[in-house]
Amino acid sequence: MAPTDCGVGQVGTQRVRLFDASHPLVLASGATLGEVEIAYETYGTLNDDASNAVFICHALTGDAHAAGFHDGAKKPGWWDNLIGPGRPVDTDRFFVIAPNLLGGCSGSTGPASTNPETGRAYGLDFPLLQMIDFVTVHRALLDHLGVSRLAAAVGGSLGGMQVLQWALAFPEQVENAVIIAASSRLSAQNIAFSAVAREAIMRDPGFRAGHYLDEGTLPEVGLSIARMMAHITYLSEEAMAEKFGRRFQDSTTPRHGFGVDFEVESYLNHQGETFLNRFDALSYLYLTRVMDYFDAFAQGESLTKVAAAGTRFCVLSFDSDWRFDTSHSRRIASTLERAGCPTTFREITSPWGHDSFLLPIPAYHDTLRAFLSLAGPTGEQR
Amino acid sequence: MAPTDCGVGQVGTQRVRLFDASHPLVLASGATLGEVEIAYETYGTLNDDASNAVFICHALTGDAHAAGFHDGAKKPGWWDNLIGPGRPVDTDRFFVIAPNLLGGCSGSTGPASTNPETGRAYGLDFPLLQMIDFVTVHRALLDHLGVSRLAAAVGGSLGGMQVLQWALAFPEQVENAVIIAASSRLSAQNIAFSAVAREAIMRDPGFRAGHYLDEGTLPEVGLSIARMMAHITYLSEEAMAEKFGRRFQDSTTPRHGFGVDFEVESYLNHQGETFLNRFDALSYLYLTRVMDYFDAFAQGESLTKVAAAGTRFCVLSFDSDWRFDTSHSRRIASTLERAGCPTTFREITSPWGHDSFLLPIPAYHDTLRAFLSLAGPTGEQR
Repeated sequence: MAPTDCGVGQVGTQRVRLFDASHPLVLASGATLGEVEIAYETYGTLNDDASNAVFICHALTGDAHAAGFHDGAKKPGWWDNLIGPGRPVDTDRFFVIAPNLLGGCSGSTGPASTNPETGRAYGLDFPLLQMIDFVTVHRALLDHLGVSRLAAAVGGSLGGMQVLQWALAFPEQVENAVIIAASSRLSAQNIAFSAVAREAIMRDPGFRAGHYLDEGTLPEVGLSIARMMAHITYLSEEAMAEKFGRRFQDSTTPRHGFGVDFEVESYLNHQGETFLNRFDALSYLYLTRVMDYFDAFAQGESLTKVAAAGTRFCVLSFDSDWRFDTSHSRRIASTLERAGCPTTFREITSPWGHDSFLLPIPAYHDTLRAFLSLAGPTGEQR
Repeated sequence: MAPTDCGVGQVGTQRVRLFDASHPLVLASGATLGEVEIAYETYGTLNDDASNAVFICHALTGDAHAAGFHDGAKKPGWWDNLIGPGRPVDTDRFFVIAPNLLGGCSGSTGPASTNPETGRAYGLDFPLLQMIDFVTVHRALLDHLGVSRLAAAVGGSLGGMQVLQWALAFPEQVENAVIIAASSRLSAQNIAFSAVAREAIMRDPGFRAGHYLDEGTLPEVGLSIARMMAHITYLSEEAMAEKFGRRFQDSTTPRHGFGVDFEVESYLNHQGETFLNRFDALSYLYLTRVMDYFDAFAQGESLTKVAAAGTRFCVLSFDSDWRFDTSHSRRIASTLERAGCPTTFREITSPWGHDSFLLPIPAYHDTLRAFLSLAGPTGEQR
């Protein structure tokens, strides 16, 4: 085992075909996908009775590489500070499963994948997804791995929304549900930001009505504008002031021009540029649209059934998060509690806005560690 | 005189050449403009000793048509609820002057104007402006109108920033300065939003490095994306929830697609579209950049001189404004008061965010009316 400060050490991404023409994925809309492959990573060891599995659901632009290091990489997985031996999601205790989402672009089937019926990229012919479709695929991955019930499902932002959907639809399968910096339904302002981002992508001349992969173009301007705008919402105003203030990029005096001059401009441009190398514009459209339409408590799931299943919930928010502010988490927690579901709710103090869910904030990790201490096999069973 | 409920009645925009080749405008940067025309409107009557003039400074996308109706128009000027007989800026008492800004695109010289040296549109050859340059031009307009001192200068947002700059640089010329929903210096987040908007414009293929007017293209996508994003910041999250919630545009059920479906999407698209008919992308770049670089109290103006001149200040903010939240106004007010300048400061309760400064909110108008009751000729002089 790798020493604690090395986390889970070297890891690799696997890929599995979960649905095929003879066994297609049937989506909530009724549409089908005849070929679904999912990229995923696992950390730790599944115990004999398969009772120690923790499922990680990633956020909008995440991927399967949640922890450890890929061969030769300098940066670890995106949630490495949370997942590993002795860490809050403790790989000495848990078998951790981290997939790339359906609709994503990091190894799993999505709108940029090849449509087996045409031999060309799906583009906008890829069917619209709903939150429950992610759950359907996650459950198929569990089947593949021989796990019938999760010790916990854990996710932040869009990941937390997947966890909430899973726990509401199949509570008997989720012993503990951890929902971080998420929402049960987006506000008009939340939708507005995503709508403008999608406009920027779809109206980019390189988008070609979604056929850019076949036509050899890319909606690079639109996608980087979308990313820059998103990053404004990921940091609090306070954090931006702290990180950048009104400082200039490479001098103490302004250059007075329309180029990058302020540090905050340099940061946003960098975020916009690097995003192009790792994310697909169609995935951005599909995944943000799932969030817009999601309304967890309006979809007819029986909260009585959830309460009867005994699923424990942990709902966390960050006080400076204005992408999904605490009122979103409070609504989730109070709705669950009114239905009799045992729910831990904390608003964590942090200046870093929505990005906080990715950071090793002590009170946040302590809360999560304490909550998960009761998850999975305990005492003699360990 | 028009009846009170008709405001100032029918009005028209005038145009005056304030600077020419033999008497060029010298900007703070040292650059010169050999031809400057300014569009403006006036309402009310200048009194015999020219002591009742009130100057209106408009915000980012405003124009000279602040009050009354243009011939055949259905909508009045943008601040008609504030300006007129018996209104807070009372045209029975005041002679009101409302110009379009230097750098604007509604009749005044700006980057889309013809460069007399080349016979083509300036484009990015137009010199970069600073806040004080607006003041220089406003002062020239006053000279033209035979006014040496203002009873009051009034402005919201960028308009308030102009008023602040004017009062700091030439306090003896401004008896009363009304600074509404403005800032003495933008935060990193404020700059970030403008930076992304400018990226969207400048990276639009139709921008043609600023030569779009000569080349017969327009950066329409970029400009409408900029406007949509700006509108998110003009409304509070609460106001967006109230106005649009999660309602769908034309049915009670979602259509599930990437087209406009939610009401908030329809609103933003409409804002983005209509903006193209009335605003120029280059003006958007120039005016937002003036705001980014502005830092009112770091530019060496003597606050002792301002206090000695006796200028009275009224600084107003709105509690739901997150474009320029109350901390911006509080910094202006406290800096002025520390220097001994008489300052009225109010945070007005309003759910409508930054847009509040354009709305007839009773407490806002009452505060302004009361403050202006001491402006200009009073008592027997009226």
